[in-house]
Amino acid sequence: MNFCSECGSGVIHTIPDGDNRLRHVCLQCNTVHYQNPKMVVGCLPEWEDKVLLCRRAIEPQYGLWTLPAGFMENNETTQQGALRETMEEAGARVEIEQLFTLYNLPYISQVYLMFRARLLDLDFAPGPESLEVALFREDEIPWDQIAFRTIEQTLRLYFADRRNGGFGFHIGDIERRNR
Amino acid sequence: MNFCSECGSGVIHTIPDGDNRLRHVCLQCNTVHYQNPKMVVGCLPEWEDKVLLCRRAIEPQYGLWTLPAGFMENNETTQQGALRETMEEAGARVEIEQLFTLYNLPYISQVYLMFRARLLDLDFAPGPESLEVALFREDEIPWDQIAFRTIEQTLRLYFADRRNGGFGFHIGDIERRNR
Ligand SMILES: [Zn+2]
Ligand SMILES: [Zn+2]
Repeated sequence: MNFCSECGSGVIHTIPDGDNRLRHVCLQCNTVHYQNPKMVVGCLPEWEDKVLLCRRAIEPQYGLWTLPAGFMENNETTQQGALRETMEEAGARVEIEQLFTLYNLPYISQVYLMFRARLLDLDFAPGPESLEVALFREDEIPWDQIAFRTIEQTLRLYFADRRNGGFGFHIGDIERRNR
Repeated sequence: MNFCSECGSGVIHTIPDGDNRLRHVCLQCNTVHYQNPKMVVGCLPEWEDKVLLCRRAIEPQYGLWTLPAGFMENNETTQQGALRETMEEAGARVEIEQLFTLYNLPYISQVYLMFRARLLDLDFAPGPESLEVALFREDEIPWDQIAFRTIEQTLRLYFADRRNGGFGFHIGDIERRNR
């Protein structure tokens, strides 16, 4: 951030009065430009003993598999965002069942919220951000081709919980690593 | 938003290629300025049969009672943010037990995450944003002087769950209303 989005003046990096961390501040119009973490919301769609995955048609991780998820938009709920992403990426209609995982990714200032969801029909189809969409049994999951660690861990917890006969809510942190 | 924070040019309000909603876009440097919901994170600190509340020293809702909570910052986890706010507003050391409530406030593009937390000692004291900090038994809670509906509902669910002998995880929406 170099310029004030309100008045167009240059911003400086300073600790405002009464604050305790560096912010982008405009000395012309006195606006403090806060920057906050973003939420990624998505679904784990279930159909019988299968789950629905999307193969990414965009970077990052082009060609790898993921659950439908994306950045939450203003003026929607977390569940509405998860349903919207599931429709946009997989053309899939689902019913939300339960918040299943929350992952903190502090190194990129993101929080993932993944909901278990019941797939309502088999009329799904890839949206513009997906190459293909398909259902996988546990033994069919392409574990070495999952796009993101949040998604891999969500899937592993899902199958573990299912074997144990009940789904919990799981919260965890993902730390930076060299891939 | 009137100006591009990257290059200082004027931005326009338009739907970018491949998108489906209005964004602030800079035609000079091609930056799309996304705006996303913010997370508010906080704690419900427990001590024996009491909970800790803070009386607000700032607007909005100056003079009313609330649980320690505030905007999550970049590069922290939701739990770290909740602990930080509890220290800043109440001078209180707590240990996080469980994510207790998630509230969607789509009309102001916020998501509240409130954690149950065990107060570790009684050496709490109001920070600069609080007038006072105190412990309340259920029958002492100033229900008509709670600052926010998210906090009132979190407290009501807490005492209801406690009477029922077990704490769950609760998710809900708060809609706009005239106060
Ligand atoms: Zn300015
Ligand atoms: Zn620009």
